[in-house]
Amino acid sequence: MRATVLHAPRDIRLDEVADPQLQLDTDAVVRVVASCICGSDLWPYRGISSPDGAVRIGHEFVGVVEQVGASVSSVAAGDFVIAPFLFSDNTCALCQRGVHSSCTNGGIWGRTDKQGHDVDGGQGELVRVPWADGTLVSTPSQPSQQMVAQLLTLSDVFPTGHHAAVSAGVTAGSTVAVVGDGAVGLSAVLAAKRLGAGRIVAMSRHEDRQRLARQFGADEIVAERGKEGASAVREILDGIGADFVLECVGTGDSMKQAMLSARPGGRIGYVGVPHDVELSVPQMFGRNIGLAGGVAPVRSYIEDLLPDVLDGTISPGDVFDLAVPLDQVADGYRAMDERTAIKTMLTL
Amino acid sequence: MRATVLHAPRDIRLDEVADPQLQLDTDAVVRVVASCICGSDLWPYRGISSPDGAVRIGHEFVGVVEQVGASVSSVAAGDFVIAPFLFSDNTCALCQRGVHSSCTNGGIWGRTDKQGHDVDGGQGELVRVPWADGTLVSTPSQPSQQMVAQLLTLSDVFPTGHHAAVSAGVTAGSTVAVVGDGAVGLSAVLAAKRLGAGRIVAMSRHEDRQRLARQFGADEIVAERGKEGASAVREILDGIGADFVLECVGTGDSMKQAMLSARPGGRIGYVGVPHDVELSVPQMFGRNIGLAGGVAPVRSYIEDLLPDVLDGTISPGDVFDLAVPLDQVADGYRAMDERTAIKTMLTL
Repeated sequence: MRATVLHAPRDIRLDEVADPQLQLDTDAVVRVVASCICGSDLWPYRGISSPDGAVRIGHEFVGVVEQVGASVSSVAAGDFVIAPFLFSDNTCALCQRGVHSSCTNGGIWGRTDKQGHDVDGGQGELVRVPWADGTLVSTPSQPSQQMVAQLLTLSDVFPTGHHAAVSAGVTAGSTVAVVGDGAVGLSAVLAAKRLGAGRIVAMSRHEDRQRLARQFGADEIVAERGKEGASAVREILDGIGADFVLECVGTGDSMKQAMLSARPGGRIGYVGVPHDVELSVPQMFGRNIGLAGGVAPVRSYIEDLLPDVLDGTISPGDVFDLAVPLDQVADGYRAMDERTAIKTMLTL
Repeated sequence: MRATVLHAPRDIRLDEVADPQLQLDTDAVVRVVASCICGSDLWPYRGISSPDGAVRIGHEFVGVVEQVGASVSSVAAGDFVIAPFLFSDNTCALCQRGVHSSCTNGGIWGRTDKQGHDVDGGQGELVRVPWADGTLVSTPSQPSQQMVAQLLTLSDVFPTGHHAAVSAGVTAGSTVAVVGDGAVGLSAVLAAKRLGAGRIVAMSRHEDRQRLARQFGADEIVAERGKEGASAVREILDGIGADFVLECVGTGDSMKQAMLSARPGGRIGYVGVPHDVELSVPQMFGRNIGLAGGVAPVRSYIEDLLPDVLDGTISPGDVFDLAVPLDQVADGYRAMDERTAIKTMLTL
């Protein structure tokens, strides 16, 4: 089969690799229908976090089950399935508490499972899925081509935005500010709207992203960043700041911007993969600022979000503004890297 | 009248000072019935945070209203009242959101109000109370002497422990670990129990405090500290750690202990006044650790907690293990400083 391999910074190719085989009774093999490129894929692509040698890449995909191991019971060959960006058994003590991202038996696509077997990346034709019963969520029927893009967002980007909103604790009628206008930030706007936020401020300097933010439910746009941006947010939101701030970038600057945008007693939901972000608790203490989030336990959210996607209540797939065939994966990465695309879908 | 004045580190005296007068229509003057000494009073007492010159001190008191300003309507002369450790108008945008600790017109006892008038400390015979309607909560009748100690805890220590539990989000049946066996930590045990926690681990090395922790609802005691303590907590709690950790100390070490005691997806409620506490967000991210708390907005909690105190459902006043008359205030401070008392009440 063909699969995406990152050979070196900015050297990404579709290579011929061995077809995956069932290794354990709990495995499935899935034929990928669509995959996509994540902002976090750009870290190794840009050589900022550089893996040793050539690596399989991609962790977001939907597809059709080809084969299942002997003990798999919840999905069957022919099912259309959504794969969360981490695999998990859905039964361990942490999965039971909704923290599938810390599953005792879990892991990440493109690495190995706990038994030491290789696990395929998501940007390829076939993927061996460990813990298929725990990991995969099947749809009630085969989706239309248009619906595939919507469902693909349930693999990572939309539940990650949702995790920011849920972790912050967004309530009906509340005020929300979103830091970050990438695909996750835009998804966070949609997630906050879905949870009933009364007023949403999206922070973005790019016209195309501002437009999508408004389409997803933003009431106001703030183009300024840093202190000026936070000050504009506070001015818009009753002079005090947002009840909830969704931090979808992960830099020290974006976290500061989030802190300053929150009202006293406000909560920050953080899902931007953090790089050198330190917090001063004394600075949070006086203003009663809270912070929660982390790696999104996507698997715990899919069943809740799926009906709204299937019935068209929400269209998180509108975050894809570029689709390329898998064999043009290098063009897809380039577009994401140069920010000419918000998020790129890879079709098969 | 006589009031406690801190003249220099460890030089605390009961001095003759001017009687407070009503300064504004929104004021009241309260005759103090009981006051107490807070762990945070020890910081200036020990000279660690040293004020300039002699200062009035004390921020926890209950008493009887002597006089009210022309516009005060919710309390009247003769009422027995509880004063939260910060005064607040209870009407501004932040009070309306329950963050009375950030009240636009609020302030702290022993300093000045926003109009620049001196405000008395709580460890004295009389106190001018700004924003009396917003600040004071009256009881339905005059309490017994025994009940006075219980009600006095509603001024600070019990709602502060409660704030840790509420900020963390303690739910019925959950597991809770409490870091800190001071009066606030012990109050946090009681607050978690009241909120229905299923299993509470108190971290304490002192037998008298362990005993009170058990009386307040702790199921297990861990005497070890730091990494060893956190490891013991994890072992007790399903091998994964606590759903909620209540951090009631405020040092870098205690916060680390709290972080390590929390399970993935766990939440920390922090109310220990922090000194040089830094958090590494990348370390929290992978384990989905959340953190919320800060200066307790005591006024927002009193009406919720008062009935349980009045009907004897909870007895937070058992945290007082020493009572001295106000004129022996120096002995009271010494006992707190030398940790021979958990918490000292000052009677008048």
